[in-house]
Amino acid sequence: MSARERAKSGRLYGVGLGPGDPELITRRGARLIETAEVIAYPALAGGDSLARSIAAELIPAGAEEIVMDIPMTPARAPAQAAYDDGAARIAAALDTGRDVVCLCEGDPFFYGSFMYLFARLAPAYPVEVVPGVTSLTACAARAAMPLAARNEVMTVLPGPLPDDALRGHLRSADTVICMKVGRHLPRLRALLAAEGLTGRATYVERATLGTERVLPLAEAPESAPYFSMILIAKGADPWL
Amino acid sequence: MSARERAKSGRLYGVGLGPGDPELITRRGARLIETAEVIAYPALAGGDSLARSIAAELIPAGAEEIVMDIPMTPARAPAQAAYDDGAARIAAALDTGRDVVCLCEGDPFFYGSFMYLFARLAPAYPVEVVPGVTSLTACAARAAMPLAARNEVMTVLPGPLPDDALRGHLRSADTVICMKVGRHLPRLRALLAAEGLTGRATYVERATLGTERVLPLAEAPESAPYFSMILIAKGADPWL
Repeated sequence: MSARERAKSGRLYGVGLGPGDPELITRRGARLIETAEVIAYPALAGGDSLARSIAAELIPAGAEEIVMDIPMTPARAPAQAAYDDGAARIAAALDTGRDVVCLCEGDPFFYGSFMYLFARLAPAYPVEVVPGVTSLTACAARAAMPLAARNEVMTVLPGPLPDDALRGHLRSADTVICMKVGRHLPRLRALLAAEGLTGRATYVERATLGTERVLPLAEAPESAPYFSMILIAKGADPWL
Repeated sequence: MSARERAKSGRLYGVGLGPGDPELITRRGARLIETAEVIAYPALAGGDSLARSIAAELIPAGAEEIVMDIPMTPARAPAQAAYDDGAARIAAALDTGRDVVCLCEGDPFFYGSFMYLFARLAPAYPVEVVPGVTSLTACAARAAMPLAARNEVMTVLPGPLPDDALRGHLRSADTVICMKVGRHLPRLRALLAAEGLTGRATYVERATLGTERVLPLAEAPESAPYFSMILIAKGADPWL
């Protein structure tokens, strides 16, 4: 694309929507959505889009919607192909001079799918990332559990990691957030019990949504949804 | 306090304001501030309040303001005394049946001062924490640096920690965010150089404020303000 054509292209906004409650969208995010001509978002292949449902009340009637069906498989290639296709459709809209607002659950750069679009489109188009409230601090708020203070170390651990990796980080950090718990819950529960951390662990599911659950880990359900977390505060309460 | 008196008390809201740009306040946070009768916030002793400045355009004329002057000293006792005093003044307002909106930079439970008030007041009063955008993801957005994806491990490290502790975490995580850089910048820079990570490190100062600076670590200034961070992405770009 020549510099002349580039100057005419639209801008891509990656808007973090926060954890689920539409009231936790930022003012800037809300304004961008309310005035959008083109909206893009991921959806589970053949299913709903959590991102669209969070932003639904703000999306203008008549906005063009670019839906990216993302297959949820362990294999990477099908998802990568879906992002290739989504990026091409977003690029086509940007090339007409229109801005595109991409809806992102949580924060665009924190375990989000926007980074796949960013990698494909940022080299060629102006991109602005609007940060959002992460599930991390939303879960902490709902669990009434301060995450970290002063010189405490906090580590975010994806639940699918092997036990050895999890164990090392559990021992070396003051606060540990275990994300993407889902089907790994029984294994994580056993690991935390062996480390003597069950009593310091809180289970949070779908934070800030109507179906939210906050429980001591010992009372967590047998099966957990993908959007669930375990918060572990190892330090003694240091806030008084 | 008896159950009867308790029922009449107001509610304390800890509202995360985000990293500095007032547009990054959440919709819920903005509504709570706009309708507040009593606002509380920390200020540097004898100085300004960053929290108040972020929310300034939303604070209603006539709102009562509870200012907590927090001394910035390494000793803990003076700050603890300031929180004791602030909590007592907030409690007095809650006892009159009025709600109190406490303004918190970033997120209330992420290296914030609200947790000191929460520890003092949550046992006796209803408290709601409204999460905010953290400096973590705001810096990532401004640095155009995705933080973590898939099964990557992310660790948040306070800069004042000793070298040995920092080194261990730098080696074991995929993404490291070093916070509270300030006067530790020369030491951190040397440590990162010795670990071969200078080329993967970005320096961010006052993200989303008018005075923001984003630089490769190699070009960072000699002296850094307290509100500065270093973002280190060790992984190869995994997003294509």
